[in-house]
Amino acid sequence: MTTSKARSRYEDRLSEAARGMRFSAIRRMSALIERPGIISFAPGQPSPETFPVAAFQEIIADVVARESAGAFQYILTRGLASLIAAVQEYAALKGMPTTTGEMLITEGSQQGLDLVSRVLLDPGDVVLVERPSYIGATSAFRASRARMAGVRLGEEGLDLEDLRRRHAECVAGGRRPKFLYVIPSFQNPSGISHAPDRRRDLLEAARALDLLVIEDDPYGDLYFEAAPLPTLRSLDPERVVYLSSFSKILAPGLRTAFLIGPEEILAKVEIAKQSANLCGSGLDQRVILACLRRGLIDAQKERIRPYYRAKRDAMLAALEVEMPAGVRWTRPAGGLFVWVTLPEGLDAEVLLEAAVAEGVAYVAGGPFHVDGGGANTMRLTFAKEDALTIAEGVRRLGRVVRRAVGS
Amino acid sequence: MTTSKARSRYEDRLSEAARGMRFSAIRRMSALIERPGIISFAPGQPSPETFPVAAFQEIIADVVARESAGAFQYILTRGLASLIAAVQEYAALKGMPTTTGEMLITEGSQQGLDLVSRVLLDPGDVVLVERPSYIGATSAFRASRARMAGVRLGEEGLDLEDLRRRHAECVAGGRRPKFLYVIPSFQNPSGISHAPDRRRDLLEAARALDLLVIEDDPYGDLYFEAAPLPTLRSLDPERVVYLSSFSKILAPGLRTAFLIGPEEILAKVEIAKQSANLCGSGLDQRVILACLRRGLIDAQKERIRPYYRAKRDAMLAALEVEMPAGVRWTRPAGGLFVWVTLPEGLDAEVLLEAAVAEGVAYVAGGPFHVDGGGANTMRLTFAKEDALTIAEGVRRLGRVVRRAVGS
Repeated sequence: MTTSKARSRYEDRLSEAARGMRFSAIRRMSALIERPGIISFAPGQPSPETFPVAAFQEIIADVVARESAGAFQYILTRGLASLIAAVQEYAALKGMPTTTGEMLITEGSQQGLDLVSRVLLDPGDVVLVERPSYIGATSAFRASRARMAGVRLGEEGLDLEDLRRRHAECVAGGRRPKFLYVIPSFQNPSGISHAPDRRRDLLEAARALDLLVIEDDPYGDLYFEAAPLPTLRSLDPERVVYLSSFSKILAPGLRTAFLIGPEEILAKVEIAKQSANLCGSGLDQRVILACLRRGLIDAQKERIRPYYRAKRDAMLAALEVEMPAGVRWTRPAGGLFVWVTLPEGLDAEVLLEAAVAEGVAYVAGGPFHVDGGGANTMRLTFAKEDALTIAEGVRRLGRVVRRAVGS
Repeated sequence: MTTSKARSRYEDRLSEAARGMRFSAIRRMSALIERPGIISFAPGQPSPETFPVAAFQEIIADVVARESAGAFQYILTRGLASLIAAVQEYAALKGMPTTTGEMLITEGSQQGLDLVSRVLLDPGDVVLVERPSYIGATSAFRASRARMAGVRLGEEGLDLEDLRRRHAECVAGGRRPKFLYVIPSFQNPSGISHAPDRRRDLLEAARALDLLVIEDDPYGDLYFEAAPLPTLRSLDPERVVYLSSFSKILAPGLRTAFLIGPEEILAKVEIAKQSANLCGSGLDQRVILACLRRGLIDAQKERIRPYYRAKRDAMLAALEVEMPAGVRWTRPAGGLFVWVTLPEGLDAEVLLEAAVAEGVAYVAGGPFHVDGGGANTMRLTFAKEDALTIAEGVRRLGRVVRRAVGS
């Protein structure tokens, strides 16, 4: 028990969920890493250099001129009907045909994750997630007071033996997992992609375990090599709830993402969304719709893939030169992130202070691991800085790491 | 038990909360009332005629030109710092000075209600609400699996005897109410305002009961008579969490509202918001900020008060002429709604079909009552139709009601 003095004034009024809420580790680190002059590999944001601002400007003027006051009224909870139709077409071209009832617009994928949590999770439920996994998702599951079990993520994708083992452990403990959450392409934080065969095997395992799969796909279009990877949803529509967004392709400030799933689940999501925020921004949705109609999204993808590819190349080349033996890192075929694993015993969170003193920042990998571990890992994004700055940043980071390993 | 045939495919996967989710009665009615040619007193929306479209157009062009790509990046979860500062100033002028930590931007007041529910309510908790109350709020409380107890709302405000009685009943039943939710000014659905003295008495009662008060104030600026009513928050900052928005003054499509409350509660709201949707629309928030800076909001208020006042007058005058004896209605001093009470025994939901056949629509009042009753009530908005159409609509409604009462 705390004394009445130490006890906060409103604590008795808070919900159980709220009492357990803490600012994320990333948020706590951000005060440290947002100093001026720091080369930052930390933020989980696309580069504003990629945003098609001139097109936005023209589109917005056109939308307001054509739709006038109508553009500023409440819209439907599910999203503008015209946008849903356009996104259905967009998804169908990715091998994901849908009925209208299987598609719903959300204000960012984070909202999709939150709504999925609300309609699927009760307090005490278990969710299987990759180890490491995306903090935004695990915090949404945690807000529903679910518990998480981590499944090992290897270079080629999910370790399916570990999946079956963790699943069996949960069942033995009396808690059949509610679903498996994965980011199969260019994962945040690791940059890892599940290989095509591994995707098929994952779905087979999910079928055998009668496990629903939540596929989060914000980076799938940012592939740097030959061709995009098939989405899990395209391989097994009945088993997969799919989320993607326009945040990384167009701009994240236009809060517009989409959710594909069984009509029955999406009907519940719609009701949950109505009480969550009534509806999204009519202006944002109209801008995204115009981008789809004008073919701007495909043009953007063509433009930004080489942009990010060059930055990834710069980062990988610099790591090759600067990192001492014993340090490993992923070679992502797309997305925004490289994942670095330091020798066992090093702590990336502790090292961050030295890195910032050296003028470089990253996100320590520990918090991405739902069941501990990963203290010796770090997430680097190549999205923010230009190629030369990336090289200089990795040089600084190399100095810090070399000092730490004593080489 | 249902048979496996009748059982839905995904039901076992849903959360408890989701199993209980139903589309709202209003939503079910909307298919009926959205027929062309119908004079509609149904929607809960401001009139698009009031939206300052030309100003928006100029502001948006200016924002994009000045801020370029920066306008389309992720923003802070709490909202743009510059917007928070501007809204603090705005609230201070309404007698509600705040620290930065006491103010948070939400994507519509509905999101504020949802976040407040999440950080304050556990399943089974009890919330006291006005009878009738706003469906969006009660559905947010229900999504947190709270139960609600209705407190009688009289013409002058909350019945404080009934408040004490209901509170005592809850405590006797082992559930101290978590908070009291009220819309003290020009309530949706009833149009009723709590008189200034009643506000002070309400706060005194809340202090005596150690009850937190959630004050929802979307309509407070739409007063048609001499002066605005004092907000509960301005009378007792420690006890009141306050919500308001720019939806009714500017336009609801720019999803921007604000929440004022104790720093400790708002810190939890911020964490909940991060997992709910990361952040709002940077474009919407920048437009609202520019409207505040240009003094457009005050100008709007001056403009739209007489606009809605004239429509209210038209509706009240028509009701006076058209309604038979035994029908009562509120005379709202602001806002968007008039509340009609038919003689006992009549059912407004049943009557709706006849009304639509006659070419007029409204929202039946039953669903606004959390613990049953109110079948003989209806909500009419004067926001949508012009004065002449309002008169014709009330004439049609009068015919329906007169037939029903047999006069």
